[in-house]
Amino acid sequence: MHKELMNQSTPHSQKIPQSALPQSEGELLAWLRLARSRRVGPSTFIRLLREHGNAEAALAALPQVAAAAGANSYAPCHPEHANAELEAGFKAGAELLCLGTPEYPPHLALIPDPPPILWAIGDPSLAHRPTVGLVGARNASSLGQRMARILAEELGPEGYIIASGLARGVDTAAHEASLETGTIAVLAGGIDVVYPRENKALWQQICQQGLVVSEAPIGTAPQARHFPKRNRIISGMSLGIVVIEGAAKSGSLITARNALDQGREVMAVPGSPLDPRATGCNMLLRDGAGLVRSGADVMEYLQSAAQGVLPIEAPEIPHPPLPQAPPPQHPRGKQSPGLFSCPAPTPASEGGGRPATTLAPNLKALLSTAPIPEDTLIRESGLPTPKAMEMIFDLEMAGEITRHPGGMLSLA
Amino acid sequence: MHKELMNQSTPHSQKIPQSALPQSEGELLAWLRLARSRRVGPSTFIRLLREHGNAEAALAALPQVAAAAGANSYAPCHPEHANAELEAGFKAGAELLCLGTPEYPPHLALIPDPPPILWAIGDPSLAHRPTVGLVGARNASSLGQRMARILAEELGPEGYIIASGLARGVDTAAHEASLETGTIAVLAGGIDVVYPRENKALWQQICQQGLVVSEAPIGTAPQARHFPKRNRIISGMSLGIVVIEGAAKSGSLITARNALDQGREVMAVPGSPLDPRATGCNMLLRDGAGLVRSGADVMEYLQSAAQGVLPIEAPEIPHPPLPQAPPPQHPRGKQSPGLFSCPAPTPASEGGGRPATTLAPNLKALLSTAPIPEDTLIRESGLPTPKAMEMIFDLEMAGEITRHPGGMLSLA
Repeated sequence: MHKELMNQSTPHSQKIPQSALPQSEGELLAWLRLARSRRVGPSTFIRLLREHGNAEAALAALPQVAAAAGANSYAPCHPEHANAELEAGFKAGAELLCLGTPEYPPHLALIPDPPPILWAIGDPSLAHRPTVGLVGARNASSLGQRMARILAEELGPEGYIIASGLARGVDTAAHEASLETGTIAVLAGGIDVVYPRENKALWQQICQQGLVVSEAPIGTAPQARHFPKRNRIISGMSLGIVVIEGAAKSGSLITARNALDQGREVMAVPGSPLDPRATGCNMLLRDGAGLVRSGADVMEYLQSAAQGVLPIEAPEIPHPPLPQAPPPQHPRGKQSPGLFSCPAPTPASEGGGRPATTLAPNLKALLSTAPIPEDTLIRESGLPTPKAMEMIFDLEMAGEITRHPGGMLSLA
Repeated sequence: MHKELMNQSTPHSQKIPQSALPQSEGELLAWLRLARSRRVGPSTFIRLLREHGNAEAALAALPQVAAAAGANSYAPCHPEHANAELEAGFKAGAELLCLGTPEYPPHLALIPDPPPILWAIGDPSLAHRPTVGLVGARNASSLGQRMARILAEELGPEGYIIASGLARGVDTAAHEASLETGTIAVLAGGIDVVYPRENKALWQQICQQGLVVSEAPIGTAPQARHFPKRNRIISGMSLGIVVIEGAAKSGSLITARNALDQGREVMAVPGSPLDPRATGCNMLLRDGAGLVRSGADVMEYLQSAAQGVLPIEAPEIPHPPLPQAPPPQHPRGKQSPGLFSCPAPTPASEGGGRPATTLAPNLKALLSTAPIPEDTLIRESGLPTPKAMEMIFDLEMAGEITRHPGGMLSLA
C-alpha cells in the first residue's frame, strides 16, 4: 500500500528535468550554489532549473532575472562558498541528496516545497520505508515521553521508521526507542550542529544506526525561524504524524497543519483538558485528527488512509538505459544521477500562454502579511497559471513576497 | 430549540391513552400496583394500559394473561403492598410522576422504555429544562472531579440542568457544583435510600433546591443490577451525556450506549491513554463521541445536534377544557391528571391484524442470551407488529425473555 504512494508521480511543479540532475561534482556544486543563492527557495529552484535546463545556466541567468524583478545588486552564491560547504559536508561524513534522484526521500519529493538538496548522514534508504513522524513538546511530561517511547517501540517492529527532530522531550524519547528499528532525525540547523548539546551521543548513534538529514547549510546554528521549515520535512518524509503533547500555539500544531497541507495523516494523543500540554492535541482531535492510544491505532489510521489513496497512473514511457555518471571525485560523495520513473502529466491549466497582462490585477494587492496558499493566489489572480507563477517568481526575486512552508505566500 | 424537542409527540408504543391516566388516588394506587406487579416492565405496562383501557382493568386481566403465557400461580402486586408504598412515599415528601401526565419529565417520556411511574422529591419542573447528564467513575481522579465541577459550573449559568447519579466521585462533584443553578439526582435504589451514606447532606440539599427521582419502590436498597436501569433514566432525562472518566468496561460506557440508543448526544472528556480511568472516554471519542474540554464544547454539540432535530409536527387538534381531577386525598399527593398535547399518529404497521400464526416462526429461536433490540426481533420475525408484540409480551409474562434498558430483549 505504501509502495503505491511512493510510486506516485510528483506534481509538475516539483519535476526536475533529467538533464538538470547533477552528473558530476561540478554540476553538484552548481546545484548547491543555486540552492544557496539568496531568495531561491524550493519553488524558485525548481522553476529556474525547468526554465534554464540546468543549474549552471540558471546561475548564469540569475542576475538578469533578479534585475528584471528590481533587485539590481543581486549576485548568486559564490562558488567558493558552496565549495567550502561541500567539503565541510563530506568531511563531516555527510552526503548530498538531490531532489529528483533515486536516493532522495521519495515522500518528501511529493510535498509542494521539497528541499532541492538535503544533507544526510547515515542510511538514506531508511527514508524509503514507511515512516511515522512523532512530534511534541520539548517540555513534555513524563507521561508524554512514555507515550512517545511506547509508540516508537510498537511501530518499529512493525516495519515503521520513526522520524523526529532530535529536540528534548518527545523527540529524544522517540529516537531512543527506535534506534534499533530505524530512526530519522531531521535537524533545523546544520547536519553537524547538534542541538541541544546533551543529545550529542544520541546524534552520533543515529548517524551510525539511523539517518540524520538537514536542508540547512553545514555549520548553521539553528534559529527559531528554522523550526517550522524543518517540521515540514519531518511531516514530508512521513505517511502521517502523531502529535504527542503540544500546547495550543506550539510548533507541533504548525507541523500538523503542514502535514494536512501535504496530504499526510494527522493524529494526536489525547490528554486531560486540564493539562495545558494537551491543549493542542485535543484541539486537533476536535478538528478530526485520528485519536491515538497505541501503535495499533496509528497503523490502523495509516492503513485505512492508504486504502483511500488512488495512485496517480504514470504513463508507460519506456526509457533508455541511463548514462552512468562519472564516480564522484570526493571520497564521501555518493551522489548518483537518476530520475523519477513517472513523468508528470502536463496540467491542462498550464496550456494556453495567452497574454493576460491587460487583465492582470496587482498580484501584490491580493497578498497581505498573513500567508495564503500559492494555489489560492493563482486562482484569485484570474491569470493563466504560468503567467501568475512568473509574476510570483518575480516578486519573490525582488524580495517583496516571502515563501512559507506548505506552499504559503505573504508580503515580505 | 430544546422546546421543539420537548414538544415532540411520544412514539406510539409509549402513548398512554388519556382515559388510562389516574384521576383519583384509587386510580393512582392501581397504576402503582400494575407497575409493581412481577414481570410488568415499562413496555408491558404501556401495552396493558392500551389493551385494557386503564390500570384497574389491566390488573383484573393480568392473572389470565399470565396463565395464557404459562405462568399459572401469577398474582399481581397486592393492594396493601402498593398502598404502603404510596403512604411511605408521601411521608418521605415524595410525589409520584405518572408517564403521560404534564409533570412527567418530557424527554424521559420519549425513550423506548420510560418508567411508568417515577418518585420525585423537589421541583419536577427542573426536568422540563434542557438537561445534561454528567457521568463518570466513582473512583474519579481529582482531575476528573475538577472537570465535572468545571462543566457543571459552566453549563449551569447558561440554563442547563445537570443530571447525575449521586454516586461518589464525578457525580458528587457535578451535583455540588450545580446546586444553585439546578441539579437532578437519579437514584438507583428507593428515593429515600441515600447511597453512599456520606452523601446524605447533599441528598437533603438536592431535595430542597433541586430534584431527586427514582423508579424503584420506596425503601429499596440499591443493588448492582439497578444501576444500568438507573443510568437509562439519567440519559433519558438529558439532551446529551458527558462521560468524564470511565474505564473500558465501566457503567459509564453502558450509559453512553443507552444514550446513543435513545438518540441523545454522547460526549466524552479525553485523557491520557496511560491513565486507565480515561480508557472508556478515549474509546468513545475514537468511536465518534464529541470531545469535551469545556462547557462551551458541550453547548456547541447540543446546539448543532438540536439543529438536526426535525420536530414531529403535531396535528392541530383543538381539545376541550380538561375535567379537573378531584384533589388528591393525601396531603402530599400532588398528582394532577393530564395528557400529552400531541396525540401520536397511528403507525401504518399497526393496522391489519391479519392472523399470521401459520407463518409464525419460533420467536424464542431468534433470541439468545445476548440482548437484541425489540425492533430487530419484530422485523426478523416477519410477523405483523401487533402479533409479534403480543408474542413477545406472552414470553415476557412467562418469564422466558428478559427486557433490558434501551428496548433490548434476551432469553431469560
